[in-house]
Formats: sequence, C-alpha cells, structure tokens
Amino acid sequence: LISKLPNVGTTIFTVMSQLANDHKAINLGQGFPDFDPDIDLMTKVSQAMMESHNQYPPMAGVPELRNEISLKVKELYGRLYDPNQEVTVTSGATEALMASILAFVHEGDEVVVIEPCYDLYLPAIELAGGRPVVVAMQAPTEQVPRYSIDWQAVRDAITDRSKLLILNFPHNPTGINMQESDLDALEDIVQNTGIFLLGDEVYEHIVFDGQQHLSLATRPALSARSIVISSFGKTYNATGWKVGYCCAPAAMTAEIRKVHQFMVFTVNSPMQVGLANYMKNSRAHLALSSFYQQKRDRLVAGLAGTRFKPLQTQGSFFLLADYSAISDMPEADFARWMTTEHGVGVIPVSAFYQDAAADRSNHQLIRFCFAKRDDTLDTAIARLAKI
Amino acid sequence: LISKLPNVGTTIFTVMSQLANDHKAINLGQGFPDFDPDIDLMTKVSQAMMESHNQYPPMAGVPELRNEISLKVKELYGRLYDPNQEVTVTSGATEALMASILAFVHEGDEVVVIEPCYDLYLPAIELAGGRPVVVAMQAPTEQVPRYSIDWQAVRDAITDRSKLLILNFPHNPTGINMQESDLDALEDIVQNTGIFLLGDEVYEHIVFDGQQHLSLATRPALSARSIVISSFGKTYNATGWKVGYCCAPAAMTAEIRKVHQFMVFTVNSPMQVGLANYMKNSRAHLALSSFYQQKRDRLVAGLAGTRFKPLQTQGSFFLLADYSAISDMPEADFARWMTTEHGVGVIPVSAFYQDAAADRSNHQLIRFCFAKRDDTLDTAIARLAKI
Ligand SMILES: CSCCC(=O)C(=O)O
Ligand SMILES: CSCCC(=O)C(=O)O
Repeated sequence: LISKLPNVGTTIFTVMSQLANDHKAINLGQGFPDFDPDIDLMTKVSQAMMESHNQYPPMAGVPELRNEISLKVKELYGRLYDPNQEVTVTSGATEALMASILAFVHEGDEVVVIEPCYDLYLPAIELAGGRPVVVAMQAPTEQVPRYSIDWQAVRDAITDRSKLLILNFPHNPTGINMQESDLDALEDIVQNTGIFLLGDEVYEHIVFDGQQHLSLATRPALSARSIVISSFGKTYNATGWKVGYCCAPAAMTAEIRKVHQFMVFTVNSPMQVGLANYMKNSRAHLALSSFYQQKRDRLVAGLAGTRFKPLQTQGSFFLLADYSAISDMPEADFARWMTTEHGVGVIPVSAFYQDAAADRSNHQLIRFCFAKRDDTLDTAIARLAKI
Repeated sequence: LISKLPNVGTTIFTVMSQLANDHKAINLGQGFPDFDPDIDLMTKVSQAMMESHNQYPPMAGVPELRNEISLKVKELYGRLYDPNQEVTVTSGATEALMASILAFVHEGDEVVVIEPCYDLYLPAIELAGGRPVVVAMQAPTEQVPRYSIDWQAVRDAITDRSKLLILNFPHNPTGINMQESDLDALEDIVQNTGIFLLGDEVYEHIVFDGQQHLSLATRPALSARSIVISSFGKTYNATGWKVGYCCAPAAMTAEIRKVHQFMVFTVNSPMQVGLANYMKNSRAHLALSSFYQQKRDRLVAGLAGTRFKPLQTQGSFFLLADYSAISDMPEADFARWMTTEHGVGVIPVSAFYQDAAADRSNHQLIRFCFAKRDDTLDTAIARLAKI
C-alpha cells in the first residue's frame, strides 16, 4: 500500500474544524459563513426538486446556469465566454482546480505556485505527476503591512518546462488583491511563453476599500491562456452545496471536461437549477464587498484591544494576525492552543507552505475567518482580549 | 495544448442523451430513471436546508449518513465498516471510482479490467498513469444467452505489476451478476497476490429472479483488499443528486480520502443530511429488485413483438439486445439511426470497449435502459416494433 501522496495528511481545514468542534470553540478557522444562504435561493432549490430536476443534468452543467454565469462574467469583466463551450459547472472550485491541474499537467511538467498558498495546489500537482516550483511572496513590512507578489521571482521561476502558473486573488490566506500594475507585470512575464494561467478567484466578490477585483478575464492577453475559477459557495453563503465553475477558452475547456466527466460526471441538479433561477434576478453578489468590509472592520477594531497585530487585508474573508507579542510557539502549536485553551479556532499560516517547518522561523501568524455573524465575532474578540 | 487524454471524447452517455433530446426521442440510453425520488426524501432535503445544513459538512461525509451506510452494509453483507475510518461519502460513484484509481494506481502499474466495461475505467487508469490490461468476457451462446466472466483469463492477466482488478456487478452493460462460484474463483485467484479489488456495485439492489447480490463485502478474504462502491442515485432514483459512497479497510480509506479531499473536498450537505434522515426509516432499497424485475419483464415481453433479440439480464436496469436480424450497421451507427429515425435512444455496446472498432465485427448489440415509467416503455416498444 505505497501511497501516491506520502506526505499528505488530512487537510488542515478538517483537522482544525474537528478540533474546534471537539472543544466547543468558536470556529474562526475553516472558511465558511455561520449564516445561511438567501431563503429565496433555498426555496428555488426545493422547487427544482419538486419540479423533477432530480436526474443527471448535462455533463457540463445546466444550460441556464452556464448562461447566467456567462452573462455575469461578461458584465463584470468584459470577456464573453460561450456558455456551451467555455463554461463548466463543477463540484465547487475544488473540483475545477483538481480537474484543471490533472488535465494540463503532464508527468514532469513544472507548475509555478506562489507561497503561502491554498493547501490543495501542491498535492494536486503531485497527483498529476508534476513538479511544483514554489515562489515566495514578499513578506509584510512596517511600511506595507501585507504580503505582496514578487513578480521578478515569478519571472525567474518560469522555464521551458513550465506548464501552469497558479494565481489566487483576492488571496487566501493573506487577503491581498491584484492591482492593474500586477496584471501589467503578469502580462509582460507570460507574453512570450506557452504557460497557462489558473486563476483561483473564488473571493472575486469580496474586495474592500473601493478596490475592484481585476479578474484574469479582464485582459484578453491573459484570458486567452487562462482558466478562471469561482465558487457559488463563497458568493451565496452555501459552502456545503459544492457548486462552482470555471471559464476557459474552448480548446482548454474541452480538456477540462474530459477529466470532469470521469471525476464527478456532473453537479447536483436541483442546486444548479435553483442557482440559475436565482441568478436571473439577484444582484446579491454586488453587495458582498460592503457586507464583508463591515465584518473586517469589526474584527480589526476588536483586535486593537488584544495583543494580536493584524496585517492588512484587501479582499477575501480572511485576516492574518501576528501573535509574536503573545507567544513564540510555532504556528501549528499556537493555533491548537488558541482552540483548545481559549475557545477560538484559527488556522496556522504554516499550513499554507510546502515545508511548514522550514518557514516557521520567519513569522508568527494565524489566520482568522471573519465570515461570521457579528455576535460570533464579538464573542470571539472578547475571548481574544484575554489571551 | 497536448492532451493528457488524446483518445477520449465526450462520454457516450452525454453524446447519446444530447442526440435523443435534439430529436425528441424516448431516451432509453443513459442510465437514469424518468421518475422522481420519494417525496419524503425530497422533503427531508428541503428541511435540511431550512435547518441550516448549508455549510461544509465533514470531509468524509455527514457522520449520521456514514453510520446509516455502515448499518445497511452490515445488515446485508455481514461486514462491519467503521463509519469513521472506513466509509466515505463521495460525489456519486463516479468520484469514488476516480479517487480510488488515482489513489492506488502509480505510473506504470497494471490494472485488470473486464470488457465490455463502463466507459470511465480506462480513461481514469490512463489519467493515473497506469496500464490497463483488458480481459474479454465470454460471449453469449445459444445455450447461455448472456455474457460471462472468464476467470481463467482473469487469472492469466494478473502479474507482479497488477495493482488493481476492477469488478462491476450487477454488470453494466451486460446485466450479469456474480454467483458464489464466481466469488470462489476470485478468492482463489487473488489469494497469493497483492492485488486490490475495486467493486463497482452501484446496482447492488437490483437483482432478479430470486438471486442475491453477493457483494465483495460478503467475503472477509475479499473485503480485506476491496473498495466497495455504491450510489444513492441508482438506489433512490436521484441520479442528479450525485451522492455515492465507498467502503474500504481503514488503511485504504485513508489513501482514498487524501485524494477525495482535494478532488471535491466534501459532498452536498443538505442531500447528505436528507439521505441520513431518510435511511433511518426507509426499507425502499429492498423493494427495488421486484420493482425493476417487472420493468425488465415488460421490456422483454415487448421485444418479443420486434426483431430485437434480448440477452438475459440478471441485474442492473440494463438489457442488451441483438439487432442482427434488422441491420448489419456497426453499433454506433445503428444506435444513432434508432435515435434519429425511430425515436428511441440507446447506447451502442461498442462504447464499452477500449477499441470500439476492433470489436465491432463480433456482435450487433445495443443497450436499453428500462428504468422508465411503464408508459414510457410501452411507447418505446411500439416504436421498436416498427423497425
Ligand atoms: C474546502 S475547506 C477550506 C475552505 C477554505 O477555502 C479555507 O478555509 O481556506
Ligand atoms: C454518468 S452517466 C452514465 C450513467 C450510467 O451509469 C450508464 O448509463 O451506464
């Protein structure tokens, strides 16, 4: 029984949620809201069941839903994806990421990943037989109290063997967002290469302080080589429904669907039909940024009364905080200790690194998820103040 | 853009369903019922949404559902699977199959597959970097008008490099079932090998003429090396819900979950909670064999008035029929012609072969799905009588 993924354990999000549940801690770890989707959306899903949308929908997704996705993306980012050939509904962003990586990464291909990064990327590359090439972000400084992408390092990491560059923005866990100047740099870097771009944009509707989300779909030179991925779970407070999607040029989509059809075949039909009907009239995604900005501000204000020092977050529903004034424990130990002793579950930032141990010395950071009701946040803040 | 799956097109089930829809044909192709799940089950799913089961459930599945699965499998097959460590809820049987193959098959490993076979197996093996070793079934004869497994050929196919043997019963598309003598042969073949068994048992509850489904879980010597896969879609008439599961010894389950967690992370929570609550009181699965036997008999009786010659089917909701009295067209052409010219969509049996062209000369067979309302079957039969 020789493992294909010998160094992979249970994903950190499951481990920390389990620990939080076992200790009845407030779970500010795994990224999910503690409130429900719109009742109107749930009702539409129930209706879809009652109206017999219970058998296999088309492999690529319910046509009406693909159409709504195409309309939304066109409206927001200007790129028209053909709903038939360029939009695929997936079992959450997770499936879109895995299917894309398995479809494009051949044995020995290099994949450029910017660290810290979401814990799926590296095992998925390994499973595909690829070789991750990890580029470090620039660390926060006193002047710029947030991470930033080191484009020179990205440029240096790309070789003839590079198949894919994975980008994630708004970024999990750092909360940073891409600016026009970042896209300029990216465009310049990839222009004479054959590299594909994987845009993990699941927090596309959560950006703060008047910023915009600049999707890879906003730039023709980028979108022509990009897979753009999003998640209805994050957008509509329904992480447990497992519906997401990806948009990519037709030739790329064809390859993704070859894998998708044998990975899950298709995605839950009542959810898809309910989402399609809901999207026809809802502008809810446009209210998400201000909704979450208020929660970010509440958490930041609360942390001012604690010994945690927050980094800046420009988007996503995550915030990193430095705990070096409290402890010099390694991040994983500190996160467990907060959960078990202080009743607040968080994620250690070391979990977003290939070699957690190697990086540990550089920072003492944990990640908070603020996609929580205000009273949940307030109770958590009161507990944090005692640490 | 060099494909990882250069020889793979869109799955035959999607192609033929699309064709049937385009021509408003009765769809006896892709395997799904044209009737709904139990209203009580749908209501329980709606309730689960209203009771806030809308965020990520545990990665391996909702504990209550894993518990119900464990109880059912124990009751039917005698093997107790630990719900925590040996049962995993998946996005349909499809995801369980793909996750298992990706988790166990290393670059260069051999996987023994018995043909005709479901169209997922070979591409999944290819994606994992494995080498399929294809064993032919024994063809039907006048005396035994159904396919059968050639156990000597299976024995001969197993080498030191064999990692996995894929078994599917009741079998899609042939409808054959395994007998105790088959399990005896299997036990004997694998006993001194290190081979794992993948039991695709999605039609476990659909067996005819008083036969029993003999799961790999019924034999300790087999279950110790087996992954046993089933599908709530097939059992509860909800193929579009995409909920299935797999049971395997803890060490094997750990490897499957490593892949599962990065392939979909988890499965739709309202569906899982609804299914768990439904299973507590439902014995519906026990009525499925007689329900579908009546439909099989209706189709067989109807075919007596046509020039199609049915093979015997012992389980599943599929029936193969020989059309050589009608045409010598190749199967793919004949299936299209039936769909477009005669308004009855079917699946060509050639689609269940690695090299469709090579096998074509041996038989003229199409597959009917009889998971349809009686009036649907009757209308289809009337059309078939005119061919
Ligand atoms: C799929 S569980 C993880 C959810 C998430 O995106 C996160 O917590 O980072
Ligand atoms: C996943 S679509 C195919 C359904 C099925 O099992 C079949 O028709 O054989």
